[in-house]
Amino acid sequence: MKSEIIAVGSEMLTPFRQDTNSLYITEKLNEIGVNVAFKTIVGDRRKDLVNAIGAALRRTDIVILVGGLGPTEDDLTREAVAETLSLNLRREPAQVAALHARAATWRISMPENNLKQADVIQGATVLTNPNGSAPGQWLDTTFEGYRKLIMLVPGPPHECHALFDTECLPRLRDELPPRAIAVRTLKAAMIPESQADKILAPIYTEYKDVETTILAHNGDIQLTLICSKPTQAAAKQRVEELAGKLEEALDDWLYSSEGESLEQIVLYYLGLRQATLAVAESCTGGLVAQRITAVPGSSRSFLGGAVVYSDPLKTSFANVPPELIAQHGAVSAEVASAMAEGIRKRTGATLGVGVTGIAGPTGGTESKPVGLVYFAVSDSQKTDSFNRTFRGDRDRVRQWAAQQALDLIRRKLM
Amino acid sequence: MKSEIIAVGSEMLTPFRQDTNSLYITEKLNEIGVNVAFKTIVGDRRKDLVNAIGAALRRTDIVILVGGLGPTEDDLTREAVAETLSLNLRREPAQVAALHARAATWRISMPENNLKQADVIQGATVLTNPNGSAPGQWLDTTFEGYRKLIMLVPGPPHECHALFDTECLPRLRDELPPRAIAVRTLKAAMIPESQADKILAPIYTEYKDVETTILAHNGDIQLTLICSKPTQAAAKQRVEELAGKLEEALDDWLYSSEGESLEQIVLYYLGLRQATLAVAESCTGGLVAQRITAVPGSSRSFLGGAVVYSDPLKTSFANVPPELIAQHGAVSAEVASAMAEGIRKRTGATLGVGVTGIAGPTGGTESKPVGLVYFAVSDSQKTDSFNRTFRGDRDRVRQWAAQQALDLIRRKLM
Repeated sequence: MKSEIIAVGSEMLTPFRQDTNSLYITEKLNEIGVNVAFKTIVGDRRKDLVNAIGAALRRTDIVILVGGLGPTEDDLTREAVAETLSLNLRREPAQVAALHARAATWRISMPENNLKQADVIQGATVLTNPNGSAPGQWLDTTFEGYRKLIMLVPGPPHECHALFDTECLPRLRDELPPRAIAVRTLKAAMIPESQADKILAPIYTEYKDVETTILAHNGDIQLTLICSKPTQAAAKQRVEELAGKLEEALDDWLYSSEGESLEQIVLYYLGLRQATLAVAESCTGGLVAQRITAVPGSSRSFLGGAVVYSDPLKTSFANVPPELIAQHGAVSAEVASAMAEGIRKRTGATLGVGVTGIAGPTGGTESKPVGLVYFAVSDSQKTDSFNRTFRGDRDRVRQWAAQQALDLIRRKLM
Repeated sequence: MKSEIIAVGSEMLTPFRQDTNSLYITEKLNEIGVNVAFKTIVGDRRKDLVNAIGAALRRTDIVILVGGLGPTEDDLTREAVAETLSLNLRREPAQVAALHARAATWRISMPENNLKQADVIQGATVLTNPNGSAPGQWLDTTFEGYRKLIMLVPGPPHECHALFDTECLPRLRDELPPRAIAVRTLKAAMIPESQADKILAPIYTEYKDVETTILAHNGDIQLTLICSKPTQAAAKQRVEELAGKLEEALDDWLYSSEGESLEQIVLYYLGLRQATLAVAESCTGGLVAQRITAVPGSSRSFLGGAVVYSDPLKTSFANVPPELIAQHGAVSAEVASAMAEGIRKRTGATLGVGVTGIAGPTGGTESKPVGLVYFAVSDSQKTDSFNRTFRGDRDRVRQWAAQQALDLIRRKLM
């Protein structure tokens, strides 16, 4: 079954805001075996809306309209669907009562135009919205001689997601042949993108019945495998078989077989080894610490760190001897190692990490170009360092460097 | 003139990837007075593509197709446009030569199917792509009796943006009546969203000829004012007049009248005062330092900071007396103040900032709930502290807290 998602709202036709609800709805539709063939974004103009709805009904079987269900003059989704299908809108007494009850609970007076939200398309089922005043609608109807399923869903994401899950998905599932879906997400760090495709494509292209999506971003590669079969066992078997081969090919680039983030994996290993971590960051300026502390419970293994942007701070917070900086420069293997060792000793952590580099756009030289970053990791036995040169702008260099630092910790703990 | 942007590529119909090129193109189109009425996302299926192109040509005058111009079997935009318009494709000898020359420069052999990229729609103008092998195309034609402008643009963002700017925009501008556009971006921090709308809406709704867009995100509010008039002076006058009234209403919530980020403004004030800054972060875990160091040249004013996640680190990096933590708890006004003062003294910075709070999801108590964050700022004269309670999940609490910390620094420097 082909579907189309129509996101309604003029704000999504500006340079400033995007439709994001469709990502959530797509994931849920895919899981029950419905493909999204088109997405349309249309503004709050009745004529445009009628045009978009007509186009969608002519080319797909399932049309999901998101947004335009509020109380204002600009909220025209109900009117436009009714017009496209030549159906009437009727004001539903039960919905009028519900709106009054809701206003009473909130102890607010209800403006007359709020009652628009009680307008129901002829033949539609009202879908309760637990998180807002605008209900959704479900319409099982015909258009130009073909059966069509049409859903109207509110636009605010928490209303959209909850109502789609509880009201639309079960009804859709009842209309579809039973299917079982298996999904696996693999993640790998710091593998060159061209290399990833070279080693992975020959494997996954052999599995035509498994849909493989590869997403690469700042040194992180995510592979999602989805397979749909008549039985759960059959779907799972295909996904597991392909996942096994991909995992083998990814070797130690692979860090997760269940979709965890790299920082979650680092914290998992730290917990397993009963180890603690501290970081001294220069060019990443807090990015490494920030990613780790974004994980709930990270305080159990992460002691903290120092953002040693100035040279004196490298000395006072990470014990880097000023002579070492004078001799080798702040961006050097020696200083990265001293930072890693210094922060470890200063904090009493099991592992210390140092990152120093040239994020750009200025500050590069012929021997030390923009993008050059030194990394070091230190434990009680030894301190290792290496460098990498990342291409791109300041933001990209910093993101890649933070990813490399986290991967370094993972490999040290493995 | 109404336009539609069609993003071509099956990957944008998965839950994992979105069309982003349309945001850039929309901004450029708006600047020359072209509205985007529809956006469509369609996969690499020829039938669906032909359907989407036909629907777009029936409802708009300008259609911009992005993507599907590469050398693979899945790249079908050229073929689909030709089919929709009943035009032929011809292989252009000059483009074939250009592809061979490009391959020679890169010292790679050219596969036969690469030549697809030399196929040009009958009557189209070839648009040079400086950043890739697939050229764009410009077609000034008629469809069902009406004149239409159709552009084919490559999908990789750096190719798309460059080619659209240099090849499409000048041609489009030549087709449109001359217009002058004035744009202003105002930014404000930490103003409650409901309050922003209450004080701003009565002002900007009076200016129907200025398009005002408000974007609120994690304590940051951005207002964009766009006005189009026959002359630059007239457009500018209206935008400046409205901007002046909005600035007055925003009072000291306003931090930028030219679109700079809050961290840029903080660094600007630090430079102006010849002041330096150091931060001690607990719950924000490096987010404040990370935002500041994302700005090129930040090292001139930002000395660095400490991510003092554990209590011993609060003592060893920010001089917080252990008794103070024992007496008041790590999340307290006293500890925030001690962190601000301690980091200032330890680093020799003009200003020290301390942030400590409960980001959640666990760790809250009745008297100190999740979302409670203490802030302090210290200079040689005094140390001030206050607290705020943010709603939402761990990520939201951290983002709001980082924004509040930056705003605190701005206000201290103002």
